[in-house]
Amino acid sequence: MLKDWSNVIIPEEEEINERLEKARNKLVQQQILIMQKKLPVLVSFDGWGAAGKGSILGKIIKNIDPRFFKVAVMDKPTEDEKRRPFLYRYVINIPEAGKFTFMDGGCLDEVTKQKLSGKITDEEYKRKIESVKRFERQLSDNGYLVIKFFFHIGEQEQRKRLTRLLDDKNTRWRVSEYDLWQNQHYKKSLKAFDQFIDDTSQSIAPWYIVDATDKKWVQLQILETLVQAIDTALKNSTLSVPLLQNAFPLNKMEKLSDINLNKSLSDEEYEYMLKNYQKKLNNLHNIIYKKKIPVIIAYEGWDAAGKGGNIRRITEALDPRGYEVQPIASPEPHEKARHYLWRFWNRLPKSGHVTVFDRTWYGRVMVERLEGFCSENDWQRAYVEINEFEKELSDWGAVIVKFWVQIDKDTQLARFKERENTPEKRWKITDEDWRNREKWDLYENAVNEMFAKTNTTYAPWHILESNDKKYARIKALKILIDAIEEKIKETD
Amino acid sequence: MLKDWSNVIIPEEEEINERLEKARNKLVQQQILIMQKKLPVLVSFDGWGAAGKGSILGKIIKNIDPRFFKVAVMDKPTEDEKRRPFLYRYVINIPEAGKFTFMDGGCLDEVTKQKLSGKITDEEYKRKIESVKRFERQLSDNGYLVIKFFFHIGEQEQRKRLTRLLDDKNTRWRVSEYDLWQNQHYKKSLKAFDQFIDDTSQSIAPWYIVDATDKKWVQLQILETLVQAIDTALKNSTLSVPLLQNAFPLNKMEKLSDINLNKSLSDEEYEYMLKNYQKKLNNLHNIIYKKKIPVIIAYEGWDAAGKGGNIRRITEALDPRGYEVQPIASPEPHEKARHYLWRFWNRLPKSGHVTVFDRTWYGRVMVERLEGFCSENDWQRAYVEINEFEKELSDWGAVIVKFWVQIDKDTQLARFKERENTPEKRWKITDEDWRNREKWDLYENAVNEMFAKTNTTYAPWHILESNDKKYARIKALKILIDAIEEKIKETD
Repeated sequence: MLKDWSNVIIPEEEEINERLEKARNKLVQQQILIMQKKLPVLVSFDGWGAAGKGSILGKIIKNIDPRFFKVAVMDKPTEDEKRRPFLYRYVINIPEAGKFTFMDGGCLDEVTKQKLSGKITDEEYKRKIESVKRFERQLSDNGYLVIKFFFHIGEQEQRKRLTRLLDDKNTRWRVSEYDLWQNQHYKKSLKAFDQFIDDTSQSIAPWYIVDATDKKWVQLQILETLVQAIDTALKNSTLSVPLLQNAFPLNKMEKLSDINLNKSLSDEEYEYMLKNYQKKLNNLHNIIYKKKIPVIIAYEGWDAAGKGGNIRRITEALDPRGYEVQPIASPEPHEKARHYLWRFWNRLPKSGHVTVFDRTWYGRVMVERLEGFCSENDWQRAYVEINEFEKELSDWGAVIVKFWVQIDKDTQLARFKERENTPEKRWKITDEDWRNREKWDLYENAVNEMFAKTNTTYAPWHILESNDKKYARIKALKILIDAIEEKIKETD
Repeated sequence: MLKDWSNVIIPEEEEINERLEKARNKLVQQQILIMQKKLPVLVSFDGWGAAGKGSILGKIIKNIDPRFFKVAVMDKPTEDEKRRPFLYRYVINIPEAGKFTFMDGGCLDEVTKQKLSGKITDEEYKRKIESVKRFERQLSDNGYLVIKFFFHIGEQEQRKRLTRLLDDKNTRWRVSEYDLWQNQHYKKSLKAFDQFIDDTSQSIAPWYIVDATDKKWVQLQILETLVQAIDTALKNSTLSVPLLQNAFPLNKMEKLSDINLNKSLSDEEYEYMLKNYQKKLNNLHNIIYKKKIPVIIAYEGWDAAGKGGNIRRITEALDPRGYEVQPIASPEPHEKARHYLWRFWNRLPKSGHVTVFDRTWYGRVMVERLEGFCSENDWQRAYVEINEFEKELSDWGAVIVKFWVQIDKDTQLARFKERENTPEKRWKITDEDWRNREKWDLYENAVNEMFAKTNTTYAPWHILESNDKKYARIKALKILIDAIEEKIKETD
């Protein structure tokens, strides 16, 4: 696309000024609609070094009320970002509903640079392309407008600009070694950019190449494209989205009703095994810390199934500096205003750390589904979105363990009653728990569907039979230990 | 996607029957909505030989009123189809608004077969993937629902079925050599299918893999997916579509107002050159016939610019068995009910033949734009759609020559008056011509925009200065001859 791209004729200055005026006014008007219709807009600027992305960005945002946009400078990943999944820093910066995010530098820059420097294999490159495409598709499916600009200048023009910047001691710092390398390897770089643009062009998140030789002209191209895209997106604000088939390997999964809950341990067995396993887990925590393996433990299950106590038996074994428990309640307003997975991206561990999620992103296909907190199209789409999310985590190298803590209905009733009758436990039981209990069968169906659609080989579900809490705790420890040991073996 | 795909558990027969009943009823209800909302639905069935596509298709269509669907059996291309562009037979079979087309065998079958047999290079394979993706995206952009099913069975199952078919002399004919080859090279075939599915998966035209081991079960999977996709599509019937940037190489183009119209030929020059060029063209017609080069000549221009006479000077030189003139008026109802390029696909020459279009697909960005016959989103999108269309023709090997026959406003007025005053020419002039003349400036703008956006290197525009018709005719002949000679050289 880029290689064949030919400049259109630059209009006369008078025409540019007129059209700029028109596009600016349009953008000003659109802001109100964007806010009213809660449209999130993600705009990324990529392109050649010294193509003027920064200064143009400054001009574009002048037309937007500062309360409605954020600029994310996507320089090299920071040390902290390097310890996160590749997509992390992009996801974190997505706009909330009704607002803009302008990314100065998008995935193109990061990925092509790695490719050009030979830091990633073809296989890894391909995987990143898939990640980028999924990320953008998920945003679009969830109502985001995604637009990507590539600032294009010729080899000569780039050299001229770099020389000018280098000649002035006040601007010299703005020229990076990579900029110079690019210019010396212009053709090679062009080919890599072109490939990336081809690989990631989707009609739901299209690339627009802008001729960046003239400052006013590039501004006009961007503004006109932007207002046109916003126009289209505003018209489509009530869009339903095709449901994609899961493309990841699944394992078969037992139905809840087939689970044998008559499993238990004696107190002696329990104490003995607990001590041993916790010691083992503690050792492993050191190893994953050194090997920088991230561990993600996800807990779902019935109310009063014993999640809390189960989690405690795991965290007791861990160094407090290396883990976090994330209790997941209903989303806050600023979380609700973004893609529903955003708040989980925000809670991911760094590499070498452990995060335990007490309830998870699976809320989308359970409580949000059954209580109507999202549309049917939303939760139906979520199975694939979740598999994609966990695939990112798995590709990043994470150990992912998902627990379903299972009890039967009678056991729940007994525990509810016990809670009500025990003053120090009474806070644990609410009207909502009773209401949820009434929907037991609906939940059971939803859970079975969830198992069938998200029990991927790389992020499998595990049932913890928790009529006997001791049994469930030991089983959880054992599964976690096995999973970590396996990952350690892989990386040896 | 296919390689990693794992069967879900087949539900109990009772559950299947219940869900089948439900899905069937839904589909029956949806037909009315599909008709009312004028939704066109394209469903393609691909898969392993002996996976049972045909018999399942028979069962699916039983639920649909015969007036509302068509089955297109996409066997091997016929001799006639082989002389058309690759996409031709698929485009021809797209449904009209409010109806279904079921394709028994889609692009997957044709392209993977060519790939497996080594009949196409990697480069050609890649180009076909692009073609398929563009085709499907264009359909989706124009409001089509596109769904693709892959019928999956295992190696053993396929072998069992093929053996059973071969054993019975009444069914033996149904087993092709390719089916047997597939089974002997199951893994290799699987890889090719998987690759194709990955390459052509887009959220606007998704693949669904169906487990085809059990007849009722496969039927259920298809019906449930189908009704769900229809549901989504019906909700999105008023969709606007993002405008994509042109990705094809463009040449700069003069504006109409800059064209020097003071070019003329004397009668002697004209007669001499006409004779020579026509003779030359006549010779070339033989060569392109033998070399099977298709030639497409597109005429656009002002009313009374002299298109008719110009075309005649070309066709006079051609063997009547090898060319057709296609006068393009407003579309018929059955044409209007399909993608606007459909009627042009239907009028393409066979390889080795010449088609002259007297007015063309550019109507979309001229008359349809200015008279409001399509939405703004429609005509804005059309520039890229047209470039893609012509790219298909060019990849097919066609010579494409696009003429704009140019006169000035005074010349038009003089010719209009002359027509009115000449009894045998009076039919040529209508009220509409006068009305169009009043919109001269609007048209001129539209034409300039059209030039700027569709003057691709592989299908360039040529201006015929036609204040002097003789000059324009000779120029047309010369351009056509040059273009054909160049193509002949390429193929030598």
